[in-house]
Amino acid sequence: MALIVQKYGGSSVADAESIKRVAKRVAEAKRAGNDVVVVVSAMGDTTDELIDLAQQVTPMPPQREMDILLTAGERISMSLLAMAINNLGVKAKSFTGQQAGVITDAVYGRARIVDVVPSRVRETLDKGTVAIVAGFQGVNRDQNDVTTLGRGGSDTTAVALAAGLNADVCEIYTDVDGVFTADPRIVPRARKVDRITYEEMLEMAACGAKVLMLRCVEFGRRYSVPIHVRSSFTGQTGTLVTNIPVAEEAQTVEAPIITGVAHDRSEAKITIVGVPDVPGTAARIFEVVALSGANIDMIVQNVSAAATGLTDISFTLPEADGPAALAALRAVQDEIRFASLQFDDQIGKLSLIGAGMKSSPGVSAKLFAALRDAGINIEMISTSEIRISVVTRQDSLNDAVRAVHSAFDLDGEGDAVVHAGTGR
Amino acid sequence: MALIVQKYGGSSVADAESIKRVAKRVAEAKRAGNDVVVVVSAMGDTTDELIDLAQQVTPMPPQREMDILLTAGERISMSLLAMAINNLGVKAKSFTGQQAGVITDAVYGRARIVDVVPSRVRETLDKGTVAIVAGFQGVNRDQNDVTTLGRGGSDTTAVALAAGLNADVCEIYTDVDGVFTADPRIVPRARKVDRITYEEMLEMAACGAKVLMLRCVEFGRRYSVPIHVRSSFTGQTGTLVTNIPVAEEAQTVEAPIITGVAHDRSEAKITIVGVPDVPGTAARIFEVVALSGANIDMIVQNVSAAATGLTDISFTLPEADGPAALAALRAVQDEIRFASLQFDDQIGKLSLIGAGMKSSPGVSAKLFAALRDAGINIEMISTSEIRISVVTRQDSLNDAVRAVHSAFDLDGEGDAVVHAGTGR
Repeated sequence: MALIVQKYGGSSVADAESIKRVAKRVAEAKRAGNDVVVVVSAMGDTTDELIDLAQQVTPMPPQREMDILLTAGERISMSLLAMAINNLGVKAKSFTGQQAGVITDAVYGRARIVDVVPSRVRETLDKGTVAIVAGFQGVNRDQNDVTTLGRGGSDTTAVALAAGLNADVCEIYTDVDGVFTADPRIVPRARKVDRITYEEMLEMAACGAKVLMLRCVEFGRRYSVPIHVRSSFTGQTGTLVTNIPVAEEAQTVEAPIITGVAHDRSEAKITIVGVPDVPGTAARIFEVVALSGANIDMIVQNVSAAATGLTDISFTLPEADGPAALAALRAVQDEIRFASLQFDDQIGKLSLIGAGMKSSPGVSAKLFAALRDAGINIEMISTSEIRISVVTRQDSLNDAVRAVHSAFDLDGEGDAVVHAGTGR
Repeated sequence: MALIVQKYGGSSVADAESIKRVAKRVAEAKRAGNDVVVVVSAMGDTTDELIDLAQQVTPMPPQREMDILLTAGERISMSLLAMAINNLGVKAKSFTGQQAGVITDAVYGRARIVDVVPSRVRETLDKGTVAIVAGFQGVNRDQNDVTTLGRGGSDTTAVALAAGLNADVCEIYTDVDGVFTADPRIVPRARKVDRITYEEMLEMAACGAKVLMLRCVEFGRRYSVPIHVRSSFTGQTGTLVTNIPVAEEAQTVEAPIITGVAHDRSEAKITIVGVPDVPGTAARIFEVVALSGANIDMIVQNVSAAATGLTDISFTLPEADGPAALAALRAVQDEIRFASLQFDDQIGKLSLIGAGMKSSPGVSAKLFAALRDAGINIEMISTSEIRISVVTRQDSLNDAVRAVHSAFDLDGEGDAVVHAGTGR
């Protein structure tokens, strides 16, 4: 008998029929002899509809009230799912984030989980009852107020609960079959990855693979929670995220060393032109940008021209952080004495990820050659032990992904199946 | 400076525009120097939509889950209203029933309030902030689970909070201008009552006047909370429910002694034919009916025919309780040895209410004469110190109400204004 945490996103519980389908799956897991905890998101577009209502009432909703409003969504889906499971003859009870012991800080709208005290969930399981828990929400202990966890919050709730309950596995049900070697909408021959390490998954998530959110994978890694990403539409095995590398498990040196190709269109590039090349200037620039709230990703500094003593510094950041970063830099133009600023939101980032690449020196050469052969120009490069990222023009990103996917023999036999919908 | 509790029903907060209108009214009360607590129902049809969703999922939803589901409705309206008030520059915070300290028993779906501990609401008021509280809901202390209060629950929340906070007045905003001498849809010349005692209001509510629920008035009487029933669509003064009779306040014997005419179409009549007229039989019959869960209202027993020693017993009860009562009686037919059962759902009840009538012997005679002149047959009669009720055929009930209203000189000058919509 195992303890399983299952998480279902908004598209899996979009209407009464979908909820009944999920109930059936939960009942099967319970009848197979497992203890089952289910974390559920709000139904379909509920969250967007609530945000829309708030905006009709005020342009600047207080974040505390916004969190109270949004948490109504999971309240509805969790109670309906509990009803549907009871209707199949399996006992089920629903719990809010607060009742499930999901303790967070007081940063409304994007609270972080600081503790999980799932005593009521544990008692419920001990009575042979399925526990349904509202995803995306918790309670801050000081104010005793409800909080929401921000994007990907329900996945984080599920993994945190799995850690707190010492579950055998955390199953994330979604609208895709698992983690793919590339986005199947761009690379039809993309293959499902059966197994991936937390580190690789973190790189994939950070580089634009949207199937799992960064925070949830970080939580899984810290507490060694095996995460099984799988489709709620099929019964198939998906992708298992663990700390055991494929090669080690497979006991073979022939195991593929490249996990996949991720891409990201959400970044922009800021170039600071004509920066005096004196010590401390770069540090000052990135301090200013960080204080504006922007997350800097890649940085490139040109060799300075000896004649002028001036250099250009480029960095990438989430496009949405651009305006604040630009404003912050303009405010210190006189102090730093750079010439001008350029903002470029037409960039794309491709990342090749694989735990094996650190011991394979030929990987970067092969990547650059594949892009060159496809006629694609590389604007920036950054690497980590298990990742190489390059920035290209956004309109050549799809070609770049396909070229690299083929070059590393990742193409599968048939076309991947793509389902519609998104979760939260 | 006064402490005012305001309660707004579902039709008053049906959409973003209505919520903004309520916010304006709340802000005015606050800016006038008052401490303001607002109790709010779910928006418009939200509750019915949630019930509908539950029924799509299962024919028999567990009541605990149903309560969790339904309380999502007030969560949405209370946070939106808090946002709208903040948007007008007045500080406001919303609280669930639990956060506001509304403690109930564990009877899901129709919980009773056992205590009110509004310390967070009090702290909020002390900081000059408006407190918005979800109506219709509480928490049961033993299980730490959310409960709902059943029909009219939001009114009860408001009056209970007003009692717990020792408020100066509890204003119930609704879609009518106050309590009327009769239903304006039946008697266009019905007049608004300016002032009414708890006892009279209880009789009005028990006899079908739907503007305030029985439970809320009972709460108000027990804790002497002045209740002001008024329209959320106009700024006019409505009806004040207190423990001070009109005549006493007005210091005049000329004050009208009749408060109004209530009517009720929701009852049915059961007649037990051929009951042996021996001691204990009636007691046994009403014991059986009570155990079926039915609320008995009026009872009539015919004088037994000396020749047979048999009598007929009739009683009225809510129509919905009829099937259970009939089944319970059939189960004891052999024991009690009555001949047969009759069920009549075509009855109507008219009640004349007024604190002055106990000292006015001519009231019943005048009532019966008015009905006789209008050609209306009386089937049952019951009286209390401040009420006379008669049962008629349902299809002559409207005529009966108009005839009695006129006979007691209750008709006003012009026609009453009727608004659409209902609250909860």
